[in-house]
Amino acid sequence: MTTRLAVSRRLRSTPYTPRVEALGVSDYSIVNHTVLPKGFGRSVEEDYWHLREHVQLWDVSCQRQVELRGPDAATLAQLMTPRDLRSADVGQCLYAPLIDQNAGLINDPVILKLAQDHFWLSIADSDVLLWAKALALGKSFTVDVIEPDVSPLAVQGPKADVLMERVFGTEVHDIKFFRFKYLDFENHPLLIARSGYSKQGGYEIYLNDSSLGLALWDALFDAGAEFNIAPGSPNIIERVEGGLLSYGNEFTLSNNPLECGFESYCCFDADLNYIGKDALLKVKSDGPVQHIRGIKFDGDKCPPCASVWPLHVSGKTAGHISTAIWSPRLNCNVALGMLNRAYWAPGQEVVVQCGDGTQRLGEVTLLPMD
Amino acid sequence: MTTRLAVSRRLRSTPYTPRVEALGVSDYSIVNHTVLPKGFGRSVEEDYWHLREHVQLWDVSCQRQVELRGPDAATLAQLMTPRDLRSADVGQCLYAPLIDQNAGLINDPVILKLAQDHFWLSIADSDVLLWAKALALGKSFTVDVIEPDVSPLAVQGPKADVLMERVFGTEVHDIKFFRFKYLDFENHPLLIARSGYSKQGGYEIYLNDSSLGLALWDALFDAGAEFNIAPGSPNIIERVEGGLLSYGNEFTLSNNPLECGFESYCCFDADLNYIGKDALLKVKSDGPVQHIRGIKFDGDKCPPCASVWPLHVSGKTAGHISTAIWSPRLNCNVALGMLNRAYWAPGQEVVVQCGDGTQRLGEVTLLPMD
Repeated sequence: MTTRLAVSRRLRSTPYTPRVEALGVSDYSIVNHTVLPKGFGRSVEEDYWHLREHVQLWDVSCQRQVELRGPDAATLAQLMTPRDLRSADVGQCLYAPLIDQNAGLINDPVILKLAQDHFWLSIADSDVLLWAKALALGKSFTVDVIEPDVSPLAVQGPKADVLMERVFGTEVHDIKFFRFKYLDFENHPLLIARSGYSKQGGYEIYLNDSSLGLALWDALFDAGAEFNIAPGSPNIIERVEGGLLSYGNEFTLSNNPLECGFESYCCFDADLNYIGKDALLKVKSDGPVQHIRGIKFDGDKCPPCASVWPLHVSGKTAGHISTAIWSPRLNCNVALGMLNRAYWAPGQEVVVQCGDGTQRLGEVTLLPMD
Repeated sequence: MTTRLAVSRRLRSTPYTPRVEALGVSDYSIVNHTVLPKGFGRSVEEDYWHLREHVQLWDVSCQRQVELRGPDAATLAQLMTPRDLRSADVGQCLYAPLIDQNAGLINDPVILKLAQDHFWLSIADSDVLLWAKALALGKSFTVDVIEPDVSPLAVQGPKADVLMERVFGTEVHDIKFFRFKYLDFENHPLLIARSGYSKQGGYEIYLNDSSLGLALWDALFDAGAEFNIAPGSPNIIERVEGGLLSYGNEFTLSNNPLECGFESYCCFDADLNYIGKDALLKVKSDGPVQHIRGIKFDGDKCPPCASVWPLHVSGKTAGHISTAIWSPRLNCNVALGMLNRAYWAPGQEVVVQCGDGTQRLGEVTLLPMD
């Protein structure tokens, strides 16, 4: 598809947009009412190899923050997630599914604990701001819930460490995985986490002052010249192979955490209370009826997955694919999808009803893929 | 900008997407995680003249419905809006701003009253589903809040009446403005409202069975051939001239209803309770400090407004423009924007800091524009 994205203020630009556009952004997605650069005129495969070998700068400002701050902030945060936040440290990032009373997934943010009474939820594509605001209102909690001026910039790839050291000093090496520290940029402390939506390593810089956006981009991009830096974006090939899921793609409000592989983020301690616990306990007790898996399938390079593709086994519905792309490394098409219980065993053969009208032979895999 | 929209399942297709793509959609926007066709290879001006003279079919499935159903549905609906719903009729459509406790706008849906205990909120671009679900949860209301399988299709333009009669019979003429009735299509009752996001007249068909989407599109499109039907979309020129506002463009959570011209939808009766009433009363008492207005300005055709453009008067900030486009009928650029109190009088001269770097002379107007 070569459909253009119509311009409007509603689809928000970011502090980095002028640089992204000057560098020739060719594809945007929209996440949280905000542009997400998805391509710069190179192929997804070129971007994939580059990400695995060098370092990329990603404008992920669309990862908006929902700030909870005040006496009831911790109570509200815990109410929203099955993940046990009681022992979380200040300075920790916690991947946390959010669910409703039916255990349906609302979002899957990374929660940053800034202080005992101060959290950021770095969200995927749904208005958690409204969910959190209304819960606070309905429960009469004393907490401020806002979207602050925070625009994450991701530095991803094997050369991220050396690049970050050039700009922020050797202290970046002290930041542990899924932890954050404040490091200075132009005398302004920036929250920097060792995290990101790839398996290639790197950092996310939570810029909290839009007016510094261009200077921050330029400092990293200029220092990155010797490391073959390029503008980039979350790469579909890399994330499918790595089993990195996407809210709205692999799972929606109609899915529960246990069928998405989030068991380790769900606490069932008797003294922990959160929305949807009873429903989630029932899923746990019955066992999930479907589960997200990888799928490898044959044939030519598949088209992008604009809507789910059915999977069949012996003519029966076995599940569906939600994201698919050709992997130049594995030399086959790779996909993420939902498999019914009877068909989710690794090695299960399936027939993929591909979006181009063809039928392809495929095989269920565990995630991440080899 | 000619940036492409990246394809993914997360940016949802609609029941009409196959026809829209076959007809050569060239531009999409994203509203409520759903594609909104915005162009078909013709210019916005050609679409504008066509809309004013003929009839268009618009895929506005992105106007998702938030269904409130159950004993507390009416209580929840009223809690969310300053508009007095107490005397609303079943069969009525009500434009209704939704606000938070600070009187900040959450959305501005059309509320359809399907029964005393059954409402649809036909929403603009924010997840009212999450807002309503969390309020219901926090307040322990007995109400189901879901997004049903409903995909509105708009028939807009002066020939909409005669086209709709061909497909649905003369009963369509009995539907009054902002009212709805159920009329049969292939033995399936469809909710049809006399409404739509243009000032050219027409209907919105709330298709509640996706599997009928292509048949419905085809029936209308085929019958429309003799009326010079074309696929279309909400037209920026037409909506700016007509003063039709857009959530996320002209106003956001940081605006209140009184500065957006929604006074007539705000009830302050002592016995009516809704979220944000105290804050809204304070705005009413103090008077709003800014107001949405039209702006006409000179110079060449302006670029699309990707972010707000400042307005100045004698070097002082006077407000901003949020949407702007060339009007071939008024032979000038036309815009919607927010003007500070000191500068909101019609006829006020302003300097527009246009997105192309030029400064343009402009004039404040009332809405709709002449």
